[in-house]
Amino acid sequence: MSEESSSQDEIMEIGSLQGRREILLHTARESLEAGDLATLRLVLNNQHPADLADLFRHLGNEDQQRLLPLIAKPLAARMLAELDTSSLLNVAESLDHEVLSDLVEEMAPDDAADILGDLPKEHSERVLELMEGEEVAEVRELMSHPEDTGGGLMTSCLVAVQEDMDVASAIAHLRELTDEEHIFYVYVVDEGERLLGTAPIKRLLLASQDTLISELTKRECISVRADMDQEEIARLFADYDLVALPVVDGEGRLVGQVTVDDVVDVINREATEDIYGLAGTSATELEARSIAGVLRRRLPWLLFCLGGSIFSGAVIDGFHQEIVAASSMLLIFMPGIAGMGGNTGVQTSTVTVRSLATGHIKARALWSNIWRELRVAMSIGLILGVLILGVARLWTGQWLLGGCVGLAMFSSITLASLLGALLPFLFRRVGVDPAVASGPLITTLNDGLSLLVYFTIALTLFHLWG
Amino acid sequence: MSEESSSQDEIMEIGSLQGRREILLHTARESLEAGDLATLRLVLNNQHPADLADLFRHLGNEDQQRLLPLIAKPLAARMLAELDTSSLLNVAESLDHEVLSDLVEEMAPDDAADILGDLPKEHSERVLELMEGEEVAEVRELMSHPEDTGGGLMTSCLVAVQEDMDVASAIAHLRELTDEEHIFYVYVVDEGERLLGTAPIKRLLLASQDTLISELTKRECISVRADMDQEEIARLFADYDLVALPVVDGEGRLVGQVTVDDVVDVINREATEDIYGLAGTSATELEARSIAGVLRRRLPWLLFCLGGSIFSGAVIDGFHQEIVAASSMLLIFMPGIAGMGGNTGVQTSTVTVRSLATGHIKARALWSNIWRELRVAMSIGLILGVLILGVARLWTGQWLLGGCVGLAMFSSITLASLLGALLPFLFRRVGVDPAVASGPLITTLNDGLSLLVYFTIALTLFHLWG
Repeated sequence: MSEESSSQDEIMEIGSLQGRREILLHTARESLEAGDLATLRLVLNNQHPADLADLFRHLGNEDQQRLLPLIAKPLAARMLAELDTSSLLNVAESLDHEVLSDLVEEMAPDDAADILGDLPKEHSERVLELMEGEEVAEVRELMSHPEDTGGGLMTSCLVAVQEDMDVASAIAHLRELTDEEHIFYVYVVDEGERLLGTAPIKRLLLASQDTLISELTKRECISVRADMDQEEIARLFADYDLVALPVVDGEGRLVGQVTVDDVVDVINREATEDIYGLAGTSATELEARSIAGVLRRRLPWLLFCLGGSIFSGAVIDGFHQEIVAASSMLLIFMPGIAGMGGNTGVQTSTVTVRSLATGHIKARALWSNIWRELRVAMSIGLILGVLILGVARLWTGQWLLGGCVGLAMFSSITLASLLGALLPFLFRRVGVDPAVASGPLITTLNDGLSLLVYFTIALTLFHLWG
Repeated sequence: MSEESSSQDEIMEIGSLQGRREILLHTARESLEAGDLATLRLVLNNQHPADLADLFRHLGNEDQQRLLPLIAKPLAARMLAELDTSSLLNVAESLDHEVLSDLVEEMAPDDAADILGDLPKEHSERVLELMEGEEVAEVRELMSHPEDTGGGLMTSCLVAVQEDMDVASAIAHLRELTDEEHIFYVYVVDEGERLLGTAPIKRLLLASQDTLISELTKRECISVRADMDQEEIARLFADYDLVALPVVDGEGRLVGQVTVDDVVDVINREATEDIYGLAGTSATELEARSIAGVLRRRLPWLLFCLGGSIFSGAVIDGFHQEIVAASSMLLIFMPGIAGMGGNTGVQTSTVTVRSLATGHIKARALWSNIWRELRVAMSIGLILGVLILGVARLWTGQWLLGGCVGLAMFSSITLASLLGALLPFLFRRVGVDPAVASGPLITTLNDGLSLLVYFTIALTLFHLWG
């Protein structure tokens, strides 16, 4: 390496996030084992809070308790703010109320409110009582909003100025805010604190000191109410390329702002919720601290599916003697008919659920979605139907049986897709999360229905020509 | 309304994004029908480019062609940049190369590169040849990076200054950039354009005009290489609450920056890809412009599943006479055993795939994931096994049959979860997207395996005690 490039040592060029974190975990474990707390203190206090949070998530309770006192209070506070709920509860349980309230005092008000909201009620009340400073009222106010709304997402940490101020006084205002990053706008309000617009920080920078704020104000600015759903807010950020969004109350008064870093977390969380919901479990199982907690999330849908499979069993029970009498070879194609109905139904419902979530299809576009999916399903049904007809004919030597299987394949795929395109809209309309309701329900429903369709077609055709 | 609040008319408080856009669509259609292009021009030019993009997505080709000339060029350019690929291709096809190159010239270099990258090669070459200005070389350079890497995501639009400059000259540099928003840092480089750190724009604002940039520079800054995968970059933004990230080449020279608005799109797109993959289709079907295009994405997995179901059929074919001889009531529980194996396998694989994608579990944590999922699966298997044993005993009156069904339920759930916890890791290790490979593969595999397990257990037990 040349001398020149050594000046770049502090630039952290990230090769692999995972790799670096594994090294940190390894180092921490070794130092803990060797009891080398001095080295550990040095290493820990040079980390990013997000890396520390990742480290804590992978350590046992006892190790966490040994490490935490080594970390400087402001850094420890920022680390706590980065922890996921289950790790946070773990760490918080082993802390004194006093220590915890000291740490929470160091946090930004929105982080403090989020963390206290995750703690058991009596625990958080005790911490709030011990907290000092004027921030407490702010934190209580933020805690009063439901977690998944604009109010739950926003921070009260922002700079608001009046139109008739000049740039110099606005800058003086800004200087009072300790938080260095994530200030993109100065918000402009009237005497009643009602939002008038935003002055982008770049405009402030380029203007002369005595320019009036009113000259720099962008008046076409998007704002939201505190009760807006966080998913809708995330979509606004994605659609309008926002970095921050002012939140107003019913009278148009500025009460906070939502920043893009929190929205990135919302987008990831909402996607995880949809993915888990489609598989018949809940993203809250990530916060479960025991196997029993995971079971509580997964069992309900499995029991529902088990019920559905008993219905399918009843279909077989009701038909199987007639079926075997017609041709026992009909049994061979049961998994194919039921399975392909299930698969195409899941494809359709998944595509529909995701398109509704991202706004790719509008909530009113029920019929155009059904029409599109129906054409896809009938094409797929035709192709797979003809294919399985051929297979069945070759396997069993019977044209009639092939016809039954092919027709049943076509019908069950069409029916399954119809349900997959329809049900997410229905659930959404009655206020049930389409992802949660669609996944396992559609698989189970289609399983039973496909068999019913298959047997009905088979017995009818065998009755006619058998 | 009072007079005071009327001053807030320009604040767009968003009630419902969907609602507003439906009104726009309605208005546009009515004006087009009435031929009232004057009103339309007024309405269109007062819209946000993202709203115009949404409008275009819902209009036919002919209507698009009538609307586009009404929109001022800079706004039209920003709208094109917001369109999804399939709509963009639709619009671009009907445009002259000259008109298109005029519009592309108006765009930020990264948007221009993205759009030209979406067009067919000869088309984009023709547009590039027609483009004027120094931007062309920049756009060509950006186009040379693969779309899903840091290089494909970055923009060359940034401000780089040297350490020995003062704030006043840095501000003069900033003034030259026309793009008002999304400037969060001034990047600090040495004479060889190697990145030394960042100077947050807020620090510049608070400092006096003659402060040297070197005093404001944050040297601990994260940078990435142009070839880093966009998913990894998105995780850095989420983990470190970033708003922008410098991109460097092999020598540490600053070549661009990735901004958070583009990362938000990546996160949404990657989540969609995983969700579609798990359902056995591809997110590229969103760009498909015909039913055939959708079929091309969905059919391969369906054919694979059909093959799997024929394997299940062969299992039934091989066993069913023996099974019926033992007890034809065994057939009733086939859907239950196969279905529950499928369901628990999908739960496990989905949770594993998503945890790998978000970094919630580390790529090396194979065994701890398997151990966790195994305990969950065995608990579920025990509960559902005992339950179905009871159901089978009540239904058929046979303890032996109940025992077979219960044991098969337990075994197939355990086996299915084991595969669900294992396969995503294996796929990842060989470089295949775990989401795409896991979904339909695991359902299909578990279907056949569950039946095989069931029949083997049943015939063995009936042989021993029947």
